[in-house]
Amino acid sequence: MKYFIILALVLSLKATAQKHMVRLAKLEIDSAQLESYQSFLKEEIETSVKVEAGVLTLYAVFEKKHPTKVTILEIYSDTAAYQSHIQTPHFLKYKNGTANMVKSLELVETIPLIPEMKIK
Amino acid sequence: MKYFIILALVLSLKATAQKHMVRLAKLEIDSAQLESYQSFLKEEIETSVKVEAGVLTLYAVFEKKHPTKVTILEIYSDTAAYQSHIQTPHFLKYKNGTANMVKSLELVETIPLIPEMKIK
Repeated sequence: MKYFIILALVLSLKATAQKHMVRLAKLEIDSAQLESYQSFLKEEIETSVKVEAGVLTLYAVFEKKHPTKVTILEIYSDTAAYQSHIQTPHFLKYKNGTANMVKSLELVETIPLIPEMKIK
Repeated sequence: MKYFIILALVLSLKATAQKHMVRLAKLEIDSAQLESYQSFLKEEIETSVKVEAGVLTLYAVFEKKHPTKVTILEIYSDTAAYQSHIQTPHFLKYKNGTANMVKSLELVETIPLIPEMKIK
């Protein structure tokens, strides 16, 4: 019986991990507004990760050689968490505030190799 | 005096965060060998994160629309940790074992917006 409970827990964990929504957002920012964009993005990310349980990470990197190119690894607990995220005041503040700074935006849906991977 | 100690700690934390080496590795894999490649990569990542304190994460994602395209967010505590990593037996097993599976490899050095960001 003990083994069935353990098995059920393992399968449940696996199912949880697999329903994560994992995406790469690739943006190019107007170079004249880069600092202002970074400030908007930082505030939006810090608030989202702090107040939304379903936003598991928003890890943003700027390319050293092309600092106007940003990639964000976005991990949400599920699609419902994402749908909720894009309706929050802090997301809308970022989205509207940076609309004229973003030259291009590509959203790439992905499958993580190891869904339970963390950052130490 | 207390404030100087706090300030020193904060500056030290900031310096630690900023010396992290953060990179995006972008690979395209031979479609006929994709499963085998994933198996090599999974073993290499799991071992690296487990046994190397300086490998903070290797978060690999495959694009849903183009599953042969892989992006890996690589975070090392510093460049020394990275130099040590690429000499480990598990890294060399992956590198040599997948040499003929990798059609292209691009390494993009980056600067994280929020170096202390984690995955919940």
